[in-house]
Amino acid sequence: MRIRVICEGKPKDAHLRALEADFRSRIAHFSEIVVEEIQPWRRRKGGRAESLSSAEQRTLEKLRGSYKVFLDGRGREWTSEAFAEWLGEHALRGTRELAFVVGGPNGFSEAFRKQADLLLALSRMTLTRDWARALLLEQIYRGFTILRGYPYPR
Amino acid sequence: MRIRVICEGKPKDAHLRALEADFRSRIAHFSEIVVEEIQPWRRRKGGRAESLSSAEQRTLEKLRGSYKVFLDGRGREWTSEAFAEWLGEHALRGTRELAFVVGGPNGFSEAFRKQADLLLALSRMTLTRDWARALLLEQIYRGFTILRGYPYPR
Repeated sequence: MRIRVICEGKPKDAHLRALEADFRSRIAHFSEIVVEEIQPWRRRKGGRAESLSSAEQRTLEKLRGSYKVFLDGRGREWTSEAFAEWLGEHALRGTRELAFVVGGPNGFSEAFRKQADLLLALSRMTLTRDWARALLLEQIYRGFTILRGYPYPR
Repeated sequence: MRIRVICEGKPKDAHLRALEADFRSRIAHFSEIVVEEIQPWRRRKGGRAESLSSAEQRTLEKLRGSYKVFLDGRGREWTSEAFAEWLGEHALRGTRELAFVVGGPNGFSEAFRKQADLLLALSRMTLTRDWARALLLEQIYRGFTILRGYPYPR
């Protein structure tokens, strides 16, 4: 199973960038992992749009056939154990690619959200993209350590 | 109003330590902020204890008269906006000290949890202490920027 993380733009914070790189290389012990940075999506004025932006359309084309998880503050919240279990189920079920999309500050359009197989919230609190990327990779790594029964700090 | 963050031990991860220091100095523009590291609490074997440990007792003595917030994965979850509003209410109400306690990997005893004025969860996912400290400071800083209407990334 391949893990793919698609993010808008590059992380600005050097420490969060370094954390992300660290967890990316740790995840690579367990699974193929790709982090892909796409052009920053155009900022929308005046709140949430209803229809797909062209960047969202391009992203959906990339993800044809993948299991699509969009990070969304209004999404489902899981404990790390439940998240790990879900990762393990996908590996067993033979999911070819689990794709996570970390959006921009304006969130996704309603039309894009409807295309998700899962809307996932890491926290109810607002996280910058840099925090969300780093924490997502940490939780994916944590998930694999839980599945394998490796010791990893709580 | 003084913000006091009491943590068990020192952060091990250099990047999370640097993030924490960064947000600590940013919070200092808005409020008095102290981060205090206490001796690592003795590890309990076999799950959650019912009665106060001696470290918990010492911590409670330090916090007499403070508004006590204990970070707990089973605690209340807030959006960043609701958290900011709560910070602002305490400042208005004249709370002398808001004290946050970040516990160790075994969590708190039930007796200690009962002493909290608020049990706060940053996420339902398990965060290491280092992540919890850094993210807590980030959210406190974010809270002040929300209250003052400063621009800060979502």
